[in-house]
Parts: sequence; structure tokens; C-alpha cells
Amino acid sequence: MTLCLDNATLDGISHPVSIVIKDGLIDQIGVELAIPDDTLRMDAQAMTVIPGLVNGHTHAAMTLLRGAGDDLRLMEWLTQRIWPAEARLSEEDVYWGTRLATIEMIRSGTVAFQDGYWHCAGIARAVQESGLRAAVGMGMVDAQGVEQGESCKKMAMAFMEMAPHFGPRIQPLLFPHAIYSVSPENLRWCSRFAETHGINLHIHVSETVREVTDCLNRYGMRPAFHLDRLGFLHERTILAHGVFLDDTELDLIARRGATLITNPTSNLKLAVGGIFPYERVAARGIAVGLGSDGAASNNSLDLFQELKTFALVQKHAQKDPTAMPAALALEVAMGRHAPILGQTGIIAPGQPADLLLIRTSDPEMIPPLHLASNLVYAATGHVVDTTIVAGRVLMRHRVIAGEEEVRQEVTARARRITLATS
Amino acid sequence: MTLCLDNATLDGISHPVSIVIKDGLIDQIGVELAIPDDTLRMDAQAMTVIPGLVNGHTHAAMTLLRGAGDDLRLMEWLTQRIWPAEARLSEEDVYWGTRLATIEMIRSGTVAFQDGYWHCAGIARAVQESGLRAAVGMGMVDAQGVEQGESCKKMAMAFMEMAPHFGPRIQPLLFPHAIYSVSPENLRWCSRFAETHGINLHIHVSETVREVTDCLNRYGMRPAFHLDRLGFLHERTILAHGVFLDDTELDLIARRGATLITNPTSNLKLAVGGIFPYERVAARGIAVGLGSDGAASNNSLDLFQELKTFALVQKHAQKDPTAMPAALALEVAMGRHAPILGQTGIIAPGQPADLLLIRTSDPEMIPPLHLASNLVYAATGHVVDTTIVAGRVLMRHRVIAGEEEVRQEVTARARRITLATS
Repeated sequence: MTLCLDNATLDGISHPVSIVIKDGLIDQIGVELAIPDDTLRMDAQAMTVIPGLVNGHTHAAMTLLRGAGDDLRLMEWLTQRIWPAEARLSEEDVYWGTRLATIEMIRSGTVAFQDGYWHCAGIARAVQESGLRAAVGMGMVDAQGVEQGESCKKMAMAFMEMAPHFGPRIQPLLFPHAIYSVSPENLRWCSRFAETHGINLHIHVSETVREVTDCLNRYGMRPAFHLDRLGFLHERTILAHGVFLDDTELDLIARRGATLITNPTSNLKLAVGGIFPYERVAARGIAVGLGSDGAASNNSLDLFQELKTFALVQKHAQKDPTAMPAALALEVAMGRHAPILGQTGIIAPGQPADLLLIRTSDPEMIPPLHLASNLVYAATGHVVDTTIVAGRVLMRHRVIAGEEEVRQEVTARARRITLATS
Repeated sequence: MTLCLDNATLDGISHPVSIVIKDGLIDQIGVELAIPDDTLRMDAQAMTVIPGLVNGHTHAAMTLLRGAGDDLRLMEWLTQRIWPAEARLSEEDVYWGTRLATIEMIRSGTVAFQDGYWHCAGIARAVQESGLRAAVGMGMVDAQGVEQGESCKKMAMAFMEMAPHFGPRIQPLLFPHAIYSVSPENLRWCSRFAETHGINLHIHVSETVREVTDCLNRYGMRPAFHLDRLGFLHERTILAHGVFLDDTELDLIARRGATLITNPTSNLKLAVGGIFPYERVAARGIAVGLGSDGAASNNSLDLFQELKTFALVQKHAQKDPTAMPAALALEVAMGRHAPILGQTGIIAPGQPADLLLIRTSDPEMIPPLHLASNLVYAATGHVVDTTIVAGRVLMRHRVIAGEEEVRQEVTARARRITLATS
């Protein structure tokens, strides 16, 4: 089916254009195009079309635990709230939690995300139904012993076989939790497994000072070097957080070609005590993306809000109001500085049709003096009117099918999971 | 006219109640109330009722300059973008800019605000029409010489005479810009003028390190002491920013009973290099409120977003995730820690009916495990369905009359004002 967005405004082009979408790709952009008769026409009057955003690090199903343990210290949060609740999660719970997350993402302009959790078949099913793109990260943790690690391996192997059935929008990904919760042996197993299957690796790294000190004490080296000696650092590796990476680690990451994902809200909320060293990262040409982290530690999945926080904390940390200007922050959130996330962030013929129609008439978008400024500093995801992924319209005028059922299921399941632990 | 909200959910009360509003005040709360026949009934099913938020520091008309000069250094921003544009502003421009701001505030749950700008008759007219409450700050600045100061005095005196005609929701306020832009003589004049007329004072203070150093160099004392010797510090004084106040200044402010307003987004965006010392402020029992600052330096007037940033930066600065828990942040934004802002933030019979109906069914509010957490960390102002001020419904189901005209007027005026300067 061919889709045509009429009267669309593009940044930098003064007159409205038509955008023709065919087979999931942008086919033509221009005026007075020859458009086939059976084309579905969509009026984009008073809308600006921009590329969709990509969430570089989240745990979608954790919407189930939103608000379940805020304003707590990390270890109290994990051991008393999150882990006991997570121990009760079924694949069906994960499916519904991920459904809610996909609705929230579609409503706030996210077209693709990098996920890391358990019960991947539940995640993949929810993503498939949503129409979004996702890298589904198969969690690996062995902090509770050898058996836990073996069980994770089995689940990963099972999902690897299943993954192709979910179609091309869903990619499997291996997601060992962190260097303090996965043994060197299993990290090495992950490196090999990912290589064998040609999939990406994703891990939390250098999120807290304690992680760095513990690594130095236990292994005599900093986290990036520990990962590197286990074959973990290369062009197919995504490192989330990276708040406390020093220059030698950044040099190493740059040489290996790995990608860093910053999660500013999560870092502030958990008070990790540092800010992602964007300036030093960018100076080395390291690929960078933006993530929301999970809804239990943010607690929003709206990347427009994350964008603003990203720009604000970088200005603050660099003590320079010209740091992280709006246009650059937008590029990062569109995935243009992290090719591994799979989004080009470009609107041109031949590119995937992963697009947002933005309502520029909302009060917070007035006056329309500077689109990037308004998107980054004034907007939230609520300015997104229409979300299109691979040429398919996932939301039009902010309506998504099936919201009510998801709301009820998640509420009931969240109450069961968390009440049992409080 | 009596108004009754039926089936309303209140935090801490397990069953839905009715709230009867009469003459701008909450009259009764309960079930099976005797309700007069001519009462306007409003169904609040699936809504939670909370007190409205109060913006402790803004420059409403600066919506006209939203996006006109982002990502710039403070002096470049002021001298090359803001001041030349402001020199062109007419009272009619200020009226329309304030109209847009009131729409944005009503849409995001703000029921009252402290403003500081020029052409106060234009501000007051816009506020009066909007239905909001506001303290309209009469700007005073003399950095360009004696004449400028005299002109400000004349405008202030003229507005003082006019103010009562705008009705009880509008209070005049005297707003000298800052210690570096207003001479000691005129600050003293302001102190006396405010005392004579029984009005409050509002000033930017200790926003940057340079302001403190310059004050030390010029006057041999820190800003709070400079203000105090000019009779400026007392229970009717509101100090905005206060990022770099030291302990001796905080002790003085506590003794004098003045109120501090923190504007976290503005401080981060302008990269002032510090964070509001909430812990030291609260330890002294100093009254504290939250502000958005103007739309040229935020660029949103949504206090729900400001709330989150406030909680996040306090956790970060105090290196403690338990700092500024959600419920406390909400109290501050409701004005419960700053009586001078005029909002009690309490829902009870006899209290002003300044209320919000919150849609708790939005995806970001699911699951409903913890209302305060969801409001602070997950919501934006877009969860506000209905805004009621002094018993009058200013927005119902997110619709406000006259939006389109305001959008067009502000767009045209902003283009004229800013194009001339770029």
C-alpha cells in the first residue's frame, strides 16, 4: 500500500511538500508528484514532519513497576522493591508491561528502542503487535549463582531460535546486566555467543563510582578494560550509562568502536553523583545515543523530555550554555550519532519511513521561531500527532487501538506483583 | 453559581466524593451531600483532584521570545537578542504574550503566578481575562541611566492607581530587576514604595557567581547584605534564584523572613554553574517556592516538568536519591512552603477552589501505584483535564476558548519583534 503525506512541512524547506511512502520506505518528496490512484492520502497541514526518535536503552516491561520504589537508595530499591517483584513476573506480565511501554513510546515519538529484560518472547510479541522496531535484549545475570547463569543461557538460546519468526522489525540482542552481576566466565560466553550469532551486545557500565572501585579491587583494572579482556568491546557493543569512564577507557572504547548510551534522568534520579562526559566522548568520535532507562527509574519513556534533560545537564556540567545546542541534542535522539541503533534520522527518498507528524500549533510551540529549540526546550512527546514506522501509521491524532485493555491489564498485574512484596 | 464535582477521587480517601464549590470557595466535601437544585454538576469520574500549582517566578510575556536566542552565553543572549527585542515591545504585545502564557499555564495546571515585566496594564488585562491569579510585578531597571529609572517609577505609580480596577485576583508587586541593574538609590526607593503601598517586593538575586563577585567588589558585601542595608529584606520579599547564597546570607534571609524561589531549568540552561542550596535553605526554615522563569529561558511554563527537574537536580546535588521525594516536591510546587505566594495547597471546606482534575488513565500514569510519584516523575502538565480557579472552570477536557486568535497574534508579533533584531 502506498501512503502519501500531503502539505507536509519539512525543516529547511519553505513550502509544503508531499511525501510518498512505498513498501516501508520514503519513495518521493516534492510538489506535483505523480501519485498512484490507490494511494492512501493523509493531510499533514499545520504539521511538521521529522524523523522518529530512537531510545538507546530501556527496560520496557518495567512500566509494571513504575512508582513502585521511588526516592530510595539503589541497593534498597533493587533488593527490597525491584528484585522481589521481578521474581514474580511471568512472560504474560512482561508482554503486558511491554505493551504499555510501546503505547507510551508511540505517543511520544519513539520509533525504535533497545531493550534489555527477561521473557523475551513476551517482549517480542508486544513489539511485533505495536508496529515499533526493537532490539530485544536477552538478559543474563548470575549474581545468585551458577544455576541462574545457566538458566539465562538456555533462555537466550531458545529465543535465538524463535527470533526470526517475529519478523524484520525485531532483532535479538544479548544483554548481560553488568560486570558486578555477571561473572567473567559468563561475560566471555556472551561475547562468543554474540559473535557466533552475529548479534549485538548491550551492557550497563560505569553507572556508579562503586562499580569502578569494586572492579579495580577485584580485577585490578577499570570496567572498560575488564570488558575488553573478555572480548566484549567492539563495533557491535552498546554500553549504557558510562558516567565514570576515565580518559584511558574512552580511548579504548574509541579504538574498539563501541557505542555509548547516556541516560541523564536515571543518573540524576538515582543520584549516581556524576554526569555523562559527553565532551570527552565526542572529542574521541565515539558513537553516542540517548536512552530513557526503564520506567522504574525515570519514570517516563518520553524521549522529548529526556532530550531536554540531556541538553540541560550537559550545559550545566560543561558550565557552558552553548554546549549541547538544540539541533545537536535532536540529532543524538534521532540516532544520527549512533549507527548501531539502526535509525538514520534522515528524511530522503530511499530512507525507511519512520516519521513523526508534529503539531506545531500547540501553545508551547508558539511562536514558531526556531523548530529545534521548540522541540527540545518547549515540547514534550505530547506534540506528536502521528507516528509512522516502516510506512505503517501506528498513531493518528494521538489515538492508538487497544489502550484501554492494556491499562486494565497492567494495573491489575502491577498491583499483584508489587502488593505481594510490600 | 454553585459547582459540584461528582465522583472525584482525593489522595488518601479510598472512595469517590463530591466537592461542592460556592462563591469561589470549597463549601463541602463528602458523600450524599444536600446539593441545591441549580448547581452545575461536573463528573470527575476517573479523575483525581489535586490543588493547583503556583509559579513563583516568571515573565509571562516572554513567550513572545521563546526560541529567539537559545544556546547562547548570558550576556550575548541579553544584549544581542533579548534587550533589542524587548525595546520594541508595546503594551499590546505584552498583553498577547501574557495571553499565550496564561493558556500554557492553565493547560499545565498552574492556577497562580508571580510575574515581573513591563507594561503591567497589558499583563493585568490578560490575567483578568484568563481567570488566573497573579502578582503583577512592575519592572524597575536603571542600568541605562537615571531617566530609565524615573520612567519605571512613573509606570509603577500609574499601575498602582490602576491595579484595584483589575479585581481581587490581581495583586500589584514591585519588581526591581537585580542589584546589578538597579542602583542602591532606586532599590531603596522600591523598599519605601512597597512599604507605603503595602505590596510585596520581588527581585532576582545571586543567580550567577559574577553577580556575587561584582557586589563584593562594588559594595564590599554579598548580595543579601547589600539588599538588607537598603531595607529590602523582610517578610514581604521574594528572592528568585538564590543559587550562590552563602550560609551567612541564608541566616540573614531566615531572620528577615523573606521567601526564596528556585528555577532549576533556567539555572541549568544558562549554565550558571551551581544548584539551589535547598538543603541549607530548608534547614533554616526559609520559605521556598518553585518557578519556571520566562519562556525565553526555560522554554516551557509547565510546572509539572519543572517539578521533576527540581527533584532530579536536588537528588544529584545532594548525592542522595532519597532527597526531595515526590510528595515534598509537589508540596513546594503547590505553594505549601511559601505562604507569600497566596496558595494554601489544601483541599478542605473554606479553602479557595483552585483545583485540578487529573486524568489518571493516561499511559504514563499507569499503573496507579503511587500518585505523587506518577505526578512528579511520569506526568507532564498534559495530564491536567480541568483547571478551576476561584471556583471558575478555566479549562475543561483541555479546551480553552480563544486559543487560535492568541496563536496567530503571538506568531505575527513575535516575528516582527525578533526579525527586526536578527
